[in-house]
Amino acid sequence: MGKLARNVTIVGAGVSKFGVFPKRSSRDLFVDAFQETLASVDHGIAPNDLEALFLGNFTSDTFEQQSHLGPLIADWIGVPSIPATRIENACASSGAAFRQGVMAIASGMHDLVLVGGVEKMTDLPVENATDSLAMAADNTFEVQQAAFTFPGVFAIIASAYMDRYGISPEHLMRVAIKNHHNGSLNSKAQFNRTIQDLMEARSKRLTERGQPVPEWGDELGFLQDLAGNPLVAWPLRLFDCSPISDGASCLILASEDVARTLTDTPISVAASAHASAAPLADRDELTSIPSTKQAAQIAYSMAGINPEDVSLSEVHDCFTIAEVIASEDLGFFPAGEGALAVAEGRTNRDGEKPINTSGGLKAKGHPVGATGGAQLTELWTQLRGEAGQRQVSTKNLEYGLAQNLGGSGNSCVVTILKRGIS
Amino acid sequence: MGKLARNVTIVGAGVSKFGVFPKRSSRDLFVDAFQETLASVDHGIAPNDLEALFLGNFTSDTFEQQSHLGPLIADWIGVPSIPATRIENACASSGAAFRQGVMAIASGMHDLVLVGGVEKMTDLPVENATDSLAMAADNTFEVQQAAFTFPGVFAIIASAYMDRYGISPEHLMRVAIKNHHNGSLNSKAQFNRTIQDLMEARSKRLTERGQPVPEWGDELGFLQDLAGNPLVAWPLRLFDCSPISDGASCLILASEDVARTLTDTPISVAASAHASAAPLADRDELTSIPSTKQAAQIAYSMAGINPEDVSLSEVHDCFTIAEVIASEDLGFFPAGEGALAVAEGRTNRDGEKPINTSGGLKAKGHPVGATGGAQLTELWTQLRGEAGQRQVSTKNLEYGLAQNLGGSGNSCVVTILKRGIS
Repeated sequence: MGKLARNVTIVGAGVSKFGVFPKRSSRDLFVDAFQETLASVDHGIAPNDLEALFLGNFTSDTFEQQSHLGPLIADWIGVPSIPATRIENACASSGAAFRQGVMAIASGMHDLVLVGGVEKMTDLPVENATDSLAMAADNTFEVQQAAFTFPGVFAIIASAYMDRYGISPEHLMRVAIKNHHNGSLNSKAQFNRTIQDLMEARSKRLTERGQPVPEWGDELGFLQDLAGNPLVAWPLRLFDCSPISDGASCLILASEDVARTLTDTPISVAASAHASAAPLADRDELTSIPSTKQAAQIAYSMAGINPEDVSLSEVHDCFTIAEVIASEDLGFFPAGEGALAVAEGRTNRDGEKPINTSGGLKAKGHPVGATGGAQLTELWTQLRGEAGQRQVSTKNLEYGLAQNLGGSGNSCVVTILKRGIS
Repeated sequence: MGKLARNVTIVGAGVSKFGVFPKRSSRDLFVDAFQETLASVDHGIAPNDLEALFLGNFTSDTFEQQSHLGPLIADWIGVPSIPATRIENACASSGAAFRQGVMAIASGMHDLVLVGGVEKMTDLPVENATDSLAMAADNTFEVQQAAFTFPGVFAIIASAYMDRYGISPEHLMRVAIKNHHNGSLNSKAQFNRTIQDLMEARSKRLTERGQPVPEWGDELGFLQDLAGNPLVAWPLRLFDCSPISDGASCLILASEDVARTLTDTPISVAASAHASAAPLADRDELTSIPSTKQAAQIAYSMAGINPEDVSLSEVHDCFTIAEVIASEDLGFFPAGEGALAVAEGRTNRDGEKPINTSGGLKAKGHPVGATGGAQLTELWTQLRGEAGQRQVSTKNLEYGLAQNLGGSGNSCVVTILKRGIS
C-alpha cells in the first residue's frame, strides 16, 4: 500500500433530515442530501459537472425490493448517464463508498465525483428490519447457529467489556446522555432532544394522566428507570441502541486542481483506510475490534499523524459500547479507560477529545447506508468552522477522524480529513 | 476524465464451474474460482500478498439471506483482514468490481488486488429467482406499473428490433446455436453441449419412449419446434434466454512493477469505462442501449483504438437479442446488421469478429454477479493463447473487449484488455 497518486479534496457535503418518513423513498431522501450538497459548494457547481457516483447502501433489496440503486439515483438527481455504482459493506457502506470516490480521483479516472449513501428502513415492521440488519452478520455461523441479531452481538461485547474492566451499565448511559446533548443541537438529527428534554416530556405526560412522577433526579437517574429505558439485551437498554432510521448523506470529491476553482475552504483527505475482521467466534478477544485497530494504524500512517493530533472524531456508536471500544481502538484512550473518559466529560463537545458532535448514530439516527457519509459531512462542517451552535473550538483545529463499522466489525473504514489542501 | 495515473495488469484469472450446485454456497463457489486463479499466476503468489478484494454480487441478500459478503468471503479464502467491498450493479456487478480494482491500483492505494464476483441463484424456486432478478429493474416504474420481469423487458426490445429491421426470430436462434457451439468446448460451461447434441439427446429420449421423432433437419429446425423450445415472452423462446446459474469468477490485478515479477505473459487493462442509462420509458429508442454506446466510446478513446482493432469480444447475451444489439452498439456492425452478421457466421470463433467464445451467458451460464469477471477471464485466457480447443486465431491477436450490462442497460461496463504491458 502506497501513497495516493493524486490528492483528493472535499468541496461540498450535506445530509437529509434523518428520521421516519413514510412517504419518501431512498431516491427522494438522496435528492434532499444532494441539493444541500450542491448548495454547499463555495463557488457553485452544476450537476452535469459530476463524473461518477459511488453510493453506499446496505440492503434496499429487502427494505424496498429494489436493487441496482446506483443508476436509479443518478437518474433521479438528473445525471442519468454517469457511471453509478452501489457499494455495500453493511453499516460501513458509505464509508467504503467514500473510499471508492477517493480512489477514483486519485487514479486519474475522474476529477469530480459524488459519493454518499442512503437507507430507507422504516417501511418494514421493526422485527423484519431487525432480520434484514442481521444479514450483515454471518448467516450460517452467527445468525442461525447462535441466534444473534445485532443487539445480541453488542450485548455480549458489552458484557465482556464490563467483566474485564469492571465498569457498570451507567458508564454506557453516559454515552447516550452526551450524544443526545449533541443531537439536540443538530436540526437534522432524528432525536434532536437531550435526555433532560425527554425526562421533562415524560414527567409532563405522567402528570397529565394523573400518575405519580418518579424522583429521577438527573438524566442518569432517568435512564436507570427500567420503565422509560427498558432492557433490550442485557446489559444494553433501549437508550444504548441507535434507532432504525431513514436518511441520506452526500459529499463531492475533487482533484486538487478542480478543487481550487470550486472552494476557498478546502478540506482534504489525509487518509482513507479499510480493514476487515473474521466473525466473532474466530477472534482472540471481544473487548476490541481488530478491524478498527488495523484501519486506524494504516490511516495514521497515511496521514503521518498520531491519535493525539486528532481534534475531533465521529465514531460508530451503533450501540453505546461500540463508541467506548472505538475510542480505545483508535488510540484516544488506553484499553479499559474509554468508558471512564466519557464519564469524566473528556469526550464532550468542549472536552479534550470531542466524539460524535453530530449526536452520533444514537441521537442523529442510523440509516445504515448513509451513516459513513454523514460522519464525514459532520467533520467537513466542523473543520470549516460552520457547525453553528455545536461547533467545536477552532483553536488548533486541524484533523478530524471518522470510524465507520460494518456488522460486528467485519468491516471498518477509517478516514482522516484535514483542513486545507494536502 | 483523464489518463490513469498508473498502468494496471492482470496476472491471474479463473472461474468456478457454472451450473446448479445445491450443496455449495457463494463462499464455496468463490473458493473454487480463487484456487484456479492462484494457480494461474505464472510465478506463483501467496494469498497473503493480496491487499484488497472487490467482489461483484447482485443480491445474495435475497438469494441467500446474506449481505456483507465482502469480508465473509475474504475470511473464507484465508485473508480475513484485507479490505473487502461488495460492488453491486445488478448483472454488471463484477464488471464494475473489476473497475474498482483498476482504480485501486491506478490510484496508488494498492499494488495487488483480487477482483471477481459470485452469485448463488438456484436455492430459490425459479419464480422467486425471477422476482429477485426483477429488482434490477425500476420497481416503481417498470416492475409494478408495467409488470415487467426481465424476459418481458428484452422481449419488447426484440420486438422493436424485429419491427425496425425486418429480421425474424430465426436470426436470434442463430445466436444460441453459435454460443452453444462455443460452450460445448468450455468445460466450465453450464451447458457444454451444442444444440446438435441436445437434438440428438431429445431424439434418443423420444425413441426410447416409443414416441415419433420430428423431422427437425438441422439445429435451426430443432429450435423452431415449440415443443423443445417453448415461448417465454414473444418473440423470445427458451433458447433465447440465459439460464439461472451458480458460479464465481476471479482475477488478480497488479501494478506494473509488481506484474513484471509475477508473470511473463502480462495482459494489461487498456480501458475501463462505465456508463448508466435512464429506465426504458425515458429512452429515445429501444433498439440500442445508450449506456453501451457511451461506455464503448469512452473505452475506445482511453485505449486509443477503433472497433476494428478488437480481435475478440465477450458481450452480455442475457438474451440473444442483447448480443445482437451489443454488437452494433460497440461499433462492430452497423445498426440493423448485427443479426445478419451472426447468420453469416461472421461472429463465429473462426469468423472475422469472434463473439462469446466462452459460450456467452447463454451456454456458459449467467450467475449474475460473476458474469463480468467470467467475461474478462475468457479474454485473458484467449489473449494469452491458452484457450485450448476454443482458442481464436493468435494471428494479429491484440485487443479483447468485454461488455457487461446491468438491468435493461441502466448500467454498462466496457473493458478493453491488451496483450503485453501497456
